[in-house]
Amino acid sequence: MGLDGIDVSRLNGNLLIRLNRPERLNAYTDAMGRALARAVRAASQDDDVRVIIITGAGRAFCAGADVSAGADSFDMAGDGAGNFGSGRGGRHDSFIHALFDSTKPVIAAINGPAVGVGITLTLPCDVRIAADGAKIGFVFARRGLVPEAGSAWFLPRLVGLPQALRWCLSGRLISAEEALAGGLVSEVVPADQLLERALAIAAEMTEGTAPVAVAMARAMLWRLGSTASPDDALKVDAAFNMALGGGPDVKEGVAAFLAKRPPDFPGRVSRDLPPGFPWWDD
Amino acid sequence: MGLDGIDVSRLNGNLLIRLNRPERLNAYTDAMGRALARAVRAASQDDDVRVIIITGAGRAFCAGADVSAGADSFDMAGDGAGNFGSGRGGRHDSFIHALFDSTKPVIAAINGPAVGVGITLTLPCDVRIAADGAKIGFVFARRGLVPEAGSAWFLPRLVGLPQALRWCLSGRLISAEEALAGGLVSEVVPADQLLERALAIAAEMTEGTAPVAVAMARAMLWRLGSTASPDDALKVDAAFNMALGGGPDVKEGVAAFLAKRPPDFPGRVSRDLPPGFPWWDD
Amino acid sequence: MGLDGIDVSRLNGNLLIRLNRPERLNAYTDAMGRALARAVRAASQDDDVRVIIITGAGRAFCAGADVSAGADSFDMAGDGAGNFGSGRGGRHDSFIHALFDSTKPVIAAINGPAVGVGITLTLPCDVRIAADGAKIGFVFARRGLVPEAGSAWFLPRLVGLPQALRWCLSGRLISAEEALAGGLVSEVVPADQLLERALAIAAEMTEGTAPVAVAMARAMLWRLGSTASPDDALKVDAAFNMALGGGPDVKEGVAAFLAKRPPDFPGRVSRDLPPGFPWWDD
Repeated sequence: MGLDGIDVSRLNGNLLIRLNRPERLNAYTDAMGRALARAVRAASQDDDVRVIIITGAGRAFCAGADVSAGADSFDMAGDGAGNFGSGRGGRHDSFIHALFDSTKPVIAAINGPAVGVGITLTLPCDVRIAADGAKIGFVFARRGLVPEAGSAWFLPRLVGLPQALRWCLSGRLISAEEALAGGLVSEVVPADQLLERALAIAAEMTEGTAPVAVAMARAMLWRLGSTASPDDALKVDAAFNMALGGGPDVKEGVAAFLAKRPPDFPGRVSRDLPPGFPWWDD
Repeated sequence: MGLDGIDVSRLNGNLLIRLNRPERLNAYTDAMGRALARAVRAASQDDDVRVIIITGAGRAFCAGADVSAGADSFDMAGDGAGNFGSGRGGRHDSFIHALFDSTKPVIAAINGPAVGVGITLTLPCDVRIAADGAKIGFVFARRGLVPEAGSAWFLPRLVGLPQALRWCLSGRLISAEEALAGGLVSEVVPADQLLERALAIAAEMTEGTAPVAVAMARAMLWRLGSTASPDDALKVDAAFNMALGGGPDVKEGVAAFLAKRPPDFPGRVSRDLPPGFPWWDD
Repeated sequence: MGLDGIDVSRLNGNLLIRLNRPERLNAYTDAMGRALARAVRAASQDDDVRVIIITGAGRAFCAGADVSAGADSFDMAGDGAGNFGSGRGGRHDSFIHALFDSTKPVIAAINGPAVGVGITLTLPCDVRIAADGAKIGFVFARRGLVPEAGSAWFLPRLVGLPQALRWCLSGRLISAEEALAGGLVSEVVPADQLLERALAIAAEMTEGTAPVAVAMARAMLWRLGSTASPDDALKVDAAFNMALGGGPDVKEGVAAFLAKRPPDFPGRVSRDLPPGFPWWDD
């Protein structure tokens, strides 16, 4: 498949996606967004991938939308239409949905500047870590735009409403340290240790865990954590655990625990998720 | 009433519930869950109880579901059916609902290991404190199970979504200090001071407060804090304060405040809650 | 217009609202609430106002509802009816809606005691900062009342549910430092630097930002951040950015960015918000 603007490789059983337009600080294009969506959706069905790691090639993570078309870059009716996709049909949004629907945990390793869509694309990831020196900006108000890619929903959920307001109403650039203090990233490390840390976090989520259970827990936390009452969560977890409880993964999990040995879970995401998962959307 | 697996006593006007299977590290059973639900529901109607404190007998808080039936412990169709109840009819869930509906504040004093259902049972509590050295684990992914007892709803609400994801996708054990840093517990103290601290927090919530107002505030925060807009909260608090404003508790509260004396509120939870409380569910 | 109980002035392109009954520690009255609502709604339509700052005259911010009518102060049927408005028709609530609907960022500069409605009126503000020494109290349970002015919705959203429960179930006074640690205020500064800090934060939100984009981002974060799924946010931000992308503000924003000069946005809140904004309520 054509993966314009990204580079995809395997690393320790994980998928490493690099935003890959280093000559333009990995500026975002519609083609890059579509390639990202495709890569994430493919990994969601690929049992050889346990965790997805997203980072940038070169010194930037993603400097934002490509504005090489100048002042008209965001004008759908103008020549800039092909260069940036926020709100253009379903195209731009699709990588957000692909990440939101991912059956694998996703770690964003922010190696350098992450601005505009360059930071909002990390919000549906499960973990964000940053290299020291990385600058981050929810700069929309400084361009005349509003927070895109669902970030009005994602950002308050990740860092709390007061912090989200503070960053979005000013649009100013923040340091990796301020992002850490505000809860946007969970660690700041030297740039040359960033990938190593991402892999260590991926290992946390893969060693000793059941891939099917991880996929289900991820979906449950993102979706059921935001409903008005706990009743939906209670119904879903009761049904899911009843279905899982007599199955091979749980038997292996308990047997391994009792034997004090590492588990070897037979369940595979590609075939063992409940039909229609996540069915509680119905 | 039979209270299998728990011990219940009075302490300074509060109800102290001890999970009480110390020879099995207070491993959770269906019978324990039902007893816990009954004790909490009874205390909700008992005007001599101001706060409920839950702790564990012996060195553990609750080591998780009893898996003495081995690999089949979670198999509803198998012999393990009696030993663990996540998702089995309404039985297991009932203690969650009893805690969620409690008219009294609930404090979990986590005196030792709290794993699986041993930690999720504390999530509908209002306050969690831990003894130093206590290990906590949302271990579901390591057993092939998903977060139960409504924890996909509760945990993100208590600690934020990024922290909830991090703990649930790895399933690893965390220290009391990590639980404190992540916002799961509000204090970590030496084990021999844990109950004393729980009583001090209970005193904060009882000295000078009106029991009816406390019960209503608790329900409002848990239920109305999670709706999509503030309109429901505005309607409910307007109606409630209008109903309360001319009543004996508010007159006593204001008179005592103006006279700089401790209030002596006449209202009782057993008889003075609004009919159908919490009526905004209708 | 009559602005009983408040004083309104202009400061650096911002509106400064002072709660102004210093002889009564700015105790809240219905008249003050109505005046506050009117001032905020007028500023929302006034292009010469970029940010609204609310503070108190004299040594207090707002000592709470005026209880000079004594024990009957909250009795709608009694003589106190005119003195306090929580839950009395739509009158009291109206300043909350005016703040929630504000098209301008709102900063609360809590210069001294802020108790009861004196603190809940700051919750729909975007930023709260406090003078050191300021005491804050969600004292409702100590008066026999429940959290008002929508605070059961606002407070958990701002500080998290555990912290909201802890403060509301005890009703005790907290220090500015505890408010900072708990996330209720974002800074604590000496009283004589409070207004200067508020102005600096206002400058952050006005220099280089587009007024229309700021108004829209504010509404999106407060409203879309609390829905159950990201889908509403994605629909709204896609439609908004498509509408904005070809317009004069975005062209100016991108052109200024590329030219490395400060932008001069032509859009005005009074005429350039989308029709029916915020239309996603429909």
